[in-house]
Amino acid sequence: MRNKAMLSLVCVICSIVSSQGQAQKTKSQKPLIIQEQGAFSAGGSVTKSEGTFDALKPWNVAQGGQTRHGDHADVLYQIPPKAKRLSMVFLHGYGQSRRSWQTTADGREGFANIFLRRGYGVYLVDQPGRGHAGQTSKPGQITATPDDQTWFTQFRIGLYPDFNEGVQFPKDSVSLNNFFRMMTPNTGSVDETTIVNAMSAVMDKSGDGILFTHSAGGSPGWKTAIKNQHVKAVVAYEPGGFTFPEGQEPKGNRGGKGVPLDEFKKLTRIPIVVYFGDFIPKDETKAASLNFWRNVLATARQWAKVVNSHGGDATIVHLPEIGIKGNTHFLMSDLNSEQVAGVLEKWLKEKGLDK
Amino acid sequence: MRNKAMLSLVCVICSIVSSQGQAQKTKSQKPLIIQEQGAFSAGGSVTKSEGTFDALKPWNVAQGGQTRHGDHADVLYQIPPKAKRLSMVFLHGYGQSRRSWQTTADGREGFANIFLRRGYGVYLVDQPGRGHAGQTSKPGQITATPDDQTWFTQFRIGLYPDFNEGVQFPKDSVSLNNFFRMMTPNTGSVDETTIVNAMSAVMDKSGDGILFTHSAGGSPGWKTAIKNQHVKAVVAYEPGGFTFPEGQEPKGNRGGKGVPLDEFKKLTRIPIVVYFGDFIPKDETKAASLNFWRNVLATARQWAKVVNSHGGDATIVHLPEIGIKGNTHFLMSDLNSEQVAGVLEKWLKEKGLDK
Repeated sequence: MRNKAMLSLVCVICSIVSSQGQAQKTKSQKPLIIQEQGAFSAGGSVTKSEGTFDALKPWNVAQGGQTRHGDHADVLYQIPPKAKRLSMVFLHGYGQSRRSWQTTADGREGFANIFLRRGYGVYLVDQPGRGHAGQTSKPGQITATPDDQTWFTQFRIGLYPDFNEGVQFPKDSVSLNNFFRMMTPNTGSVDETTIVNAMSAVMDKSGDGILFTHSAGGSPGWKTAIKNQHVKAVVAYEPGGFTFPEGQEPKGNRGGKGVPLDEFKKLTRIPIVVYFGDFIPKDETKAASLNFWRNVLATARQWAKVVNSHGGDATIVHLPEIGIKGNTHFLMSDLNSEQVAGVLEKWLKEKGLDK
Repeated sequence: MRNKAMLSLVCVICSIVSSQGQAQKTKSQKPLIIQEQGAFSAGGSVTKSEGTFDALKPWNVAQGGQTRHGDHADVLYQIPPKAKRLSMVFLHGYGQSRRSWQTTADGREGFANIFLRRGYGVYLVDQPGRGHAGQTSKPGQITATPDDQTWFTQFRIGLYPDFNEGVQFPKDSVSLNNFFRMMTPNTGSVDETTIVNAMSAVMDKSGDGILFTHSAGGSPGWKTAIKNQHVKAVVAYEPGGFTFPEGQEPKGNRGGKGVPLDEFKKLTRIPIVVYFGDFIPKDETKAASLNFWRNVLATARQWAKVVNSHGGDATIVHLPEIGIKGNTHFLMSDLNSEQVAGVLEKWLKEKGLDK
């Protein structure tokens, strides 16, 4: 709330700068063939106001007697001809929307496009209270406080204004402008159960699929996999939190309260892979953001042990350990996103998920 | 603000009901061929907070020294091979997003898809403060007050709970559920100039194109056409307001203050067509929503006369007068959307815009 201290600088040159953003797109790609594309909402709640609606004075909202449909997910989907057996369902992270998977900061094809070209049907989700799923049952307040540098740093692009050395993120101002503009706020107060319910409704519509999550999407992702049997595998890019059995939640885990062991065991029935990028230190540092990710990676490893000790198949891949360096928190849209996709493709094949 | 009077009914069956929404899709369509698709932001502002950002404590937002990129438009685009010379750029109305053009309440292909199949590149916009363009420079407050019935009535589906007789809107509960869930709120306070600037930046990226507007998108649409020479035609579906020359604004017009005559005359250089649906009464009625549209249609006719008196080419088409009955305010997604598209296609051909 630094409204007084905020200088409102309308950046006249922004439209000029950003109008060059598309220049870097790959132009040599073969055409995409789409059997079917569209959009739908899934799940959600209906709230009602007391009173009597008068259709002759419809603007008199205070008179009540109305409904509000909210808390649903919003989904954009594209299905290629002769699609593979499993769809891919993509859930974004904090402050993001399905835009995370649709494009990159430097205007290349997004991660979903890469796999659409490889024959997968793709379902791109806006979770309740985000993007096109803006209608929620609870009110929201958006402060508009400048925080781009918080995210630049938290997302391990660098310690702002410095870029990490060797970072797989474009350093030009046009790309950074694009990246910041992909952020979009919550439109209302939405709890994790609401997100899980909506995601489960998405899976009912997509049918059997591979659930992709990014960052804060990770935690509701585990619970969606527990709730809905259409989730046949989970691919998690730097999930912020993990679902443990009750009583086994480690300190600092952002996955919330654990679940009964019987529920937890549902995660052992499906293959799971979790990817982490670069710049996560071995030891505590002075940088709070790096310590945060150090803790998340440690929790991930602990969590995979618990899953696997119950007969599960969870793999944690820290990309630098397999020789892939420079990735930020946005592995799927970094400059080497094709390489990151290639690593995943190999895993999908190993697990027989690519049929 | 009837929070106390609001009964929060979490509708457990919603996800079941809405999971049938896709059943009605046309399955027999030929595959779409897409040369290129992606997403970008266009235009916008940058606000800054005073202070010094500390990258070691990035979460300390109150310390300031940060930027916020906002007030841009967000665009999803698809380009077919050998696209026609003019692109189509689609701007939504109040409480809506590009979802208005992507699908229909009963899950058929949206209007943009229809024209993509006919060889046009399509650019689907979320205006600043809506959908994926959620980041704004000014704060926002979202009340979550139930108002579905206000919109059902205002959009001339009927006088809630009654459907208009012969209405081209699906009457099943699944479709109505889908329709209500397409609404999405403003995420911040955004003025018309901000929208026009962002739309002009969109046109700089799309290149020469036909600007489509719906409802509240109409008014910034006229100003975008005045501002940016890439707008080579305007197709307006029930625009809420009109841009008149200064001093000639009629009473009740929601197009805001008029513009200097020189500016206004830029509208006379391009072909313009404006469509209105059914259920707009000839005389005043007891229903406020119908009187509203009666006034808008009268203003549209008056406006077209002014445009044409200056040598312009503006046509107002009230669909019932050419035998097309039953359309709501959402002509482009009504049950007869293919017919509505056909009427437009004829106009595009007449004006030589279909090359």
